[in-house]
Amino acid sequence: MSLTHFDAKGDAHMVDVTDKEVTTRTATARGSVVMSEETRALVRDGTAKKGDVLAVARLAGIMAAKKTADLIPLCHPLPLSKVSLDLDLSASGVEISATVRTTGRTGVEMEALSAVTVAALTVYDMLKAVQKDMQITDIRLTYKDGGKSGRFEAE
Amino acid sequence: MSLTHFDAKGDAHMVDVTDKEVTTRTATARGSVVMSEETRALVRDGTAKKGDVLAVARLAGIMAAKKTADLIPLCHPLPLSKVSLDLDLSASGVEISATVRTTGRTGVEMEALSAVTVAALTVYDMLKAVQKDMQITDIRLTYKDGGKSGRFEAE
Amino acid sequence: MSLTHFDAKGDAHMVDVTDKEVTTRTATARGSVVMSEETRALVRDGTAKKGDVLAVARLAGIMAAKKTADLIPLCHPLPLSKVSLDLDLSASGVEISATVRTTGRTGVEMEALSAVTVAALTVYDMLKAVQKDMQITDIRLTYKDGGKSGRFEAE
Amino acid sequence: MSLTHFDAKGDAHMVDVTDKEVTTRTATARGSVVMSEETRALVRDGTAKKGDVLAVARLAGIMAAKKTADLIPLCHPLPLSKVSLDLDLSASGVEISATVRTTGRTGVEMEALSAVTVAALTVYDMLKAVQKDMQITDIRLTYKDGGKSGRFEAE
Amino acid sequence: MSLTHFDAKGDAHMVDVTDKEVTTRTATARGSVVMSEETRALVRDGTAKKGDVLAVARLAGIMAAKKTADLIPLCHPLPLSKVSLDLDLSASGVEISATVRTTGRTGVEMEALSAVTVAALTVYDMLKAVQKDMQITDIRLTYKDGGKSGRFEAE
Amino acid sequence: MSLTHFDAKGDAHMVDVTDKEVTTRTATARGSVVMSEETRALVRDGTAKKGDVLAVARLAGIMAAKKTADLIPLCHPLPLSKVSLDLDLSASGVEISATVRTTGRTGVEMEALSAVTVAALTVYDMLKAVQKDMQITDIRLTYKDGGKSGRFEAE
Repeated sequence: MSLTHFDAKGDAHMVDVTDKEVTTRTATARGSVVMSEETRALVRDGTAKKGDVLAVARLAGIMAAKKTADLIPLCHPLPLSKVSLDLDLSASGVEISATVRTTGRTGVEMEALSAVTVAALTVYDMLKAVQKDMQITDIRLTYKDGGKSGRFEAE
Repeated sequence: MSLTHFDAKGDAHMVDVTDKEVTTRTATARGSVVMSEETRALVRDGTAKKGDVLAVARLAGIMAAKKTADLIPLCHPLPLSKVSLDLDLSASGVEISATVRTTGRTGVEMEALSAVTVAALTVYDMLKAVQKDMQITDIRLTYKDGGKSGRFEAE
Repeated sequence: MSLTHFDAKGDAHMVDVTDKEVTTRTATARGSVVMSEETRALVRDGTAKKGDVLAVARLAGIMAAKKTADLIPLCHPLPLSKVSLDLDLSASGVEISATVRTTGRTGVEMEALSAVTVAALTVYDMLKAVQKDMQITDIRLTYKDGGKSGRFEAE
Repeated sequence: MSLTHFDAKGDAHMVDVTDKEVTTRTATARGSVVMSEETRALVRDGTAKKGDVLAVARLAGIMAAKKTADLIPLCHPLPLSKVSLDLDLSASGVEISATVRTTGRTGVEMEALSAVTVAALTVYDMLKAVQKDMQITDIRLTYKDGGKSGRFEAE
Repeated sequence: MSLTHFDAKGDAHMVDVTDKEVTTRTATARGSVVMSEETRALVRDGTAKKGDVLAVARLAGIMAAKKTADLIPLCHPLPLSKVSLDLDLSASGVEISATVRTTGRTGVEMEALSAVTVAALTVYDMLKAVQKDMQITDIRLTYKDGGKSGRFEAE
Repeated sequence: MSLTHFDAKGDAHMVDVTDKEVTTRTATARGSVVMSEETRALVRDGTAKKGDVLAVARLAGIMAAKKTADLIPLCHPLPLSKVSLDLDLSASGVEISATVRTTGRTGVEMEALSAVTVAALTVYDMLKAVQKDMQITDIRLTYKDGGKSGRFEAE
């Protein structure tokens, strides 16, 4: 088995997708920021009124989805037709989910993962003055549809 | 207790660091990509000869450190004096560590965390054709020095 | 009536345009930089020979149209098929007009407005050493065609 | 009188600021988005609960301040030590003010003006589905301090 | 004969390609970095084991292809379906070749040339501590296909 | 002899310049675009009146100098205090020279070379409709001063 991002000589390249079909492709990714109960309370209070950590992180995630091809060296640049993020308080901190859609020749898994990741980093940034040992964790693809490889679903 | 990234009205802003001291500031972050033994073997084989997944991810991480202020909305743009990443095979996949240094008025935690995160996303990107359910996990700050808040160390 | 850029929960998102038709879409925007007669004379003299303020601003506007999705958080990234700017001396300063065209699923109003605005900022930048109290004003959409909402025309 | 952004031959260049003093420099800019009473009501209602147009625009402005040297061709890249924006409902729509600070060799007027302008464009973007003939207007520098040319203040 | 990038008034613009056909378009460009035998030996040794100058330059070239529309003022932004670079040791230094493909309304010559050029600059960057008088030379288009103007082939 | 951009293990990194002195550093680079007499005549005619190829390329070069750290993976991001480009018609086409200055911990050779290169690519872009086989050639550092390694001068 070999990796498609490397050619026969072992050199990295951006895979040729010219002959792939233009279809609607969707991907969802998820991840968490684990924090102390005190830090979580600050997020909850801010969200309830103003000083909304989750709203800032949501926007950062949306903008990051659009920068994916600039961040990931071998990623194809793609027009995106939808980006949405959900950020919710969970028992252990903040739960993040991002869904991205395109009509194109290749999937948007990396866009969804980039959105989740940068949203998580932004949560960390805004809370790091009160807790330095938060963890960003469980970043994973949970759904993918469209394209030849078919549907992927996970929890 | 309140969050420094929001002003008295609860509006997000980029904190004024004008009066902070210009000192040398260092931060190290770590994280992992958890994968199957089969996927891990592909990385190991590529690294041994060519098709080097870890080398591509290392460069992506270095370049991401320089894009941090463009990714994280309230981050200060900073000149960086050093960025290095270590990517190593562990029992469960790939272990990533990034160290960033600046001489400036604010710390480089976010730059180190961005470098780790984008390197992890790049590992995922190159291996996703063989395994979709890898996880990016345990992204955390492990070291910080310089600046008023003093040294932070964690494992 | 509600705003399409926010979902049912009130969270910002990038609207799903997957089902919109791919059509040719054009938008024109206009705006002005109001300046003193002395400043205006400097622009006119430069344009006549060299030191061409308007040519620099025109290029800045063209390049800004291409950065629109990076500037405006909820804007869709789009391939652009045409960008042109006119910058002319008027009685009160500089009059700017930009026309942008795409073949895509969503309009290019923001691209045209970004082009005008950044061209205006560039005019300001080059002249600010001689006049600080110039005003950038009357930035507005004057024409839009293509897409479901039909033609819009204004003066 | 001649323009500093052009050399003796009339060619555009980025002015040499090597010999200028490193000082703390602050700039404030202001501007407005003029809209109908109906549109203004949608902004007001969103701000009161969720769907916060002004919060999205504020973040877009902060991020734009960091992109100024990328937008304005002859602008010097600068580290920024503070960026804040105020967006308030006025009788005629939305009033925007941005303050930027650096410790450097050149001023941050363009950063403050870029922040106001991109915040205004973002307000327009989120409301354009309900009103296309809004105007972005009265973008101007209102305050500048630090550096050889001294304090500038306007209303 | 006149230049398409300037309109009837002589002003630069991004040419309208709306009516051009969407076809698969390919371009290949080549170029060299000329260096001393000692410097060339350092590249060869690194490539053989680790410290791989050519792998770093290859990635830089791939990423640069994606930034072309941001670098070249009048270039159209395009989705890319393939980018690959070959970097080889020649008698006089390093020989670089890049091939880019799109399915779009305009060609990818500039993307291929940007990839070669930035790869060459990256080679220079990594070797400049040992030799400052290397030359980047013979950057040229060697192949182009797709679109109305037909096939071009050189060298 | 070893390359500073690779560590003891052979991994690429951004060299630590923390302990280097902050000094004023200047670099000049040069390069050429070789073209036919007919193409050169088009440039000359445009420059004499309007449709100024060299002015567009000059601006592209200035803006590219500011993007250097984003283009060259291991380059340090630096504030720039001056960027200027000269573009002149020569017997064989266009001669380009760029001078960049910073006050910082590392030199600006790559910034000067990037400015020359992107200016050359922009010249090519604007003229490629009339001549596809132009060559970008002789890109080289001609002057460097400031920093520990002292002055370098070449022709």
